[in-house]
Amino acid sequence: MGCQNYQSKIESNVDVATKLKQQAFQSPLAYDLIESLTVEVGPRLTGSEKDRLAVQWVERKLNTLGFDKVYKEAVEVPVWNRGAAKAEVIAPFQQPLVITALGGSIGTPQKGIQANIIRFKTLDALKAASITDVKGKIVFIDHKTQKTVTGAGYGETVSGRSKGAIVAAEKGAVAILIRSIGTDSDRMAHTGIMKYVDGIQKIPAAAMSNPDADLINAMLQREPIITLSLNMSSARKGVAQSFNVIAEVTGQQKPDEIVLISAHLDSWDEGTGALDDGAGVAIVTAAAKLIQDLPKKPARTIRLVLFAAEEVGIVGAKAYIKAHEKELGQHYIAAESDFGAGLIYQLDLNVSKQAFHELHRQLNPMASNGVKQGNNTAHGGPDVSIFPSRGIPVASLRQNGFDYFNYHHTPNDTLDKIDPKKLQQNVAAYAQFAYLMAQSTSQLRPMKSKQ
Amino acid sequence: MGCQNYQSKIESNVDVATKLKQQAFQSPLAYDLIESLTVEVGPRLTGSEKDRLAVQWVERKLNTLGFDKVYKEAVEVPVWNRGAAKAEVIAPFQQPLVITALGGSIGTPQKGIQANIIRFKTLDALKAASITDVKGKIVFIDHKTQKTVTGAGYGETVSGRSKGAIVAAEKGAVAILIRSIGTDSDRMAHTGIMKYVDGIQKIPAAAMSNPDADLINAMLQREPIITLSLNMSSARKGVAQSFNVIAEVTGQQKPDEIVLISAHLDSWDEGTGALDDGAGVAIVTAAAKLIQDLPKKPARTIRLVLFAAEEVGIVGAKAYIKAHEKELGQHYIAAESDFGAGLIYQLDLNVSKQAFHELHRQLNPMASNGVKQGNNTAHGGPDVSIFPSRGIPVASLRQNGFDYFNYHHTPNDTLDKIDPKKLQQNVAAYAQFAYLMAQSTSQLRPMKSKQ
Repeated sequence: MGCQNYQSKIESNVDVATKLKQQAFQSPLAYDLIESLTVEVGPRLTGSEKDRLAVQWVERKLNTLGFDKVYKEAVEVPVWNRGAAKAEVIAPFQQPLVITALGGSIGTPQKGIQANIIRFKTLDALKAASITDVKGKIVFIDHKTQKTVTGAGYGETVSGRSKGAIVAAEKGAVAILIRSIGTDSDRMAHTGIMKYVDGIQKIPAAAMSNPDADLINAMLQREPIITLSLNMSSARKGVAQSFNVIAEVTGQQKPDEIVLISAHLDSWDEGTGALDDGAGVAIVTAAAKLIQDLPKKPARTIRLVLFAAEEVGIVGAKAYIKAHEKELGQHYIAAESDFGAGLIYQLDLNVSKQAFHELHRQLNPMASNGVKQGNNTAHGGPDVSIFPSRGIPVASLRQNGFDYFNYHHTPNDTLDKIDPKKLQQNVAAYAQFAYLMAQSTSQLRPMKSKQ
Repeated sequence: MGCQNYQSKIESNVDVATKLKQQAFQSPLAYDLIESLTVEVGPRLTGSEKDRLAVQWVERKLNTLGFDKVYKEAVEVPVWNRGAAKAEVIAPFQQPLVITALGGSIGTPQKGIQANIIRFKTLDALKAASITDVKGKIVFIDHKTQKTVTGAGYGETVSGRSKGAIVAAEKGAVAILIRSIGTDSDRMAHTGIMKYVDGIQKIPAAAMSNPDADLINAMLQREPIITLSLNMSSARKGVAQSFNVIAEVTGQQKPDEIVLISAHLDSWDEGTGALDDGAGVAIVTAAAKLIQDLPKKPARTIRLVLFAAEEVGIVGAKAYIKAHEKELGQHYIAAESDFGAGLIYQLDLNVSKQAFHELHRQLNPMASNGVKQGNNTAHGGPDVSIFPSRGIPVASLRQNGFDYFNYHHTPNDTLDKIDPKKLQQNVAAYAQFAYLMAQSTSQLRPMKSKQ
């Protein structure tokens, strides 16, 4: 097309993007969706009855919203029961602790475990420890999560949660109890997935609240030997069926090319999953709905994917990649909202070098919504983080996550933590992003990080 | 004494008060005491083993600090076991609730209670309801506590907690579940004492967290009939012996006249009782210690009283009044620290009209510590609130309690909520107050409120 046409197309895209933003700030849809999901379904642990209800809930909502297509794809997911988790210090000073089982952990024997603790500042410190020191003890990883806008603090500590039980068991520990991967000072423990590997003993794993970790430290200053009693009835319960639920706004000129925006439908079980990831579900759904309702659909198809089983190891995303193997080349770009409901301040990309520069201009309408252009090293969000290795470009719409890890994976993840205004800003950003990408004329592949 | 002497005495008091403040801001004692109490004892529910440990702990501390006298007085206290408390909505949408038993509540039958709820905005609304409406239901009092510096919001809602079970049972309710008397948005319920009266059926009583009360309201907007399942194993367990623990700095000129500063040693059982009332224990103990260490003791005796069983109905204070019946006339003035560790901003009194004006000048050194002179209608704090009816003047050193009811009576009442600097300001204020009152030449009786 000639320069004149190109210019007018850009202008028209800008007009639509401006309208999408205005409409986002007038629509209560995203908040209403979170409210409905948290009140009518609530916690929706992968593979649970509530997970099934959540799938039904979202299918009903997507159909009611009138998307061009709504369908679901089966995913085999692991089932785990939290059960009860109790711990107390029994010496030198008897004190009950507030703990929660880490997701996927086995339980203790019914009579519980009594053992002395051994404290490590980090997972790396545990890795460096001798078997002699660790054997027969309860490992305590005491790594404090720093509060940051980007969530970088979480990245520094989360491996202690996910891999701690493996490293501890290799050295003969009988259980592991970590300082919560959370930035709050509430007496509430943060759950989250942990892993075992074949061939290494499975040991029970739990997290204690930050004030409880402080308490243990205060005791350690008085007395090197601290004895804990731990009793957990959590258990793995085989597999069940869940679903990735998908809706589409069919593209007008290039219906087979896909701009994928996503979130995950499952949640942990102690809150109502408002921030993680009710917010994401609501943001991308409301954004897609704004595009569905446009008088003129964009060139490419907008595909809304609400993944199953993110929390337990991005199981739904892996199933999606498998199910859509032949179609991966037609995925133009993918993004995921899974970081709460804070304001989006930056758009990072992972696209070709040339496209990165072209998109700056094309995505410029997002600036008036507070979203500045970022770098070209995006990972795209937990589920879609596996897309770039399959050649699919991704974007990260970066949210302010300063408070996110106060509530993450705790009973405190409830509706009252959501600011409806900030939610609307997120909807505007995703609607603009999805629309402008569905209209873009740039060649996004091969991505820079793959060059 | 002549005017010259009087003037020089005032100046000398000012000098001492200034020194006490300086010393308070240099001393880590108060913080160290809370740290020690919360780490080495922790929760100390009235009549529990931990209550006994707390008494031992404080006796040991008071002796170590070198007070002129340390002694304790037996108090018969009620014993109550929290047990477990579980609730869930079973219709129209199944959701678990976060609840806690109210102090003193009986449990449910072992198989639990299933019933529909009936919501009331306030205790008064429940009082106005008909038996027909309430009979067979679980009463839900949904009174939100407003956040205020003075704690006035708590005063407006707390009767729903203390008296709700009586009013509900009179109308045939099978249980009562209130919105927590707390100003936070944490998914954590606030406990606190509740009452029964003879001749009215005892029904189980619990509180739900604020987010849970919001959840119930959101369900009520969809569906008028909400069915709850409630299971509690709390139980009353007779009586036990506890102690009011007392220390004294003996007065030089008028050793039989008493300036009483106090706090309570017992706490609820889900936190570690750092704010309620570890802070008070530490503040008044550290303040008395500063006076104990003065080169020249004040005229009157400073009596430090750490009351037993405040939480369960100021049982220790009532025992104190009984035990000290003959000595009540020699109590010059009394005050209690039991509102956390926020800054003290005002001193209210309940003394004779003339003394009220005289004390303004005498207590003027407190102004430089941020404590302004207040009114003459003080109640003096929970335990000493019964002193004025026995003719004893009281003072209230008013603390900023804006955040206090975020944590009050929850697991969140832990050491990390204490600001050591604010604690020192409190110590300075109590030390100045106690010293200046022990030196005062004013006639505080009869009090204005009794005139």
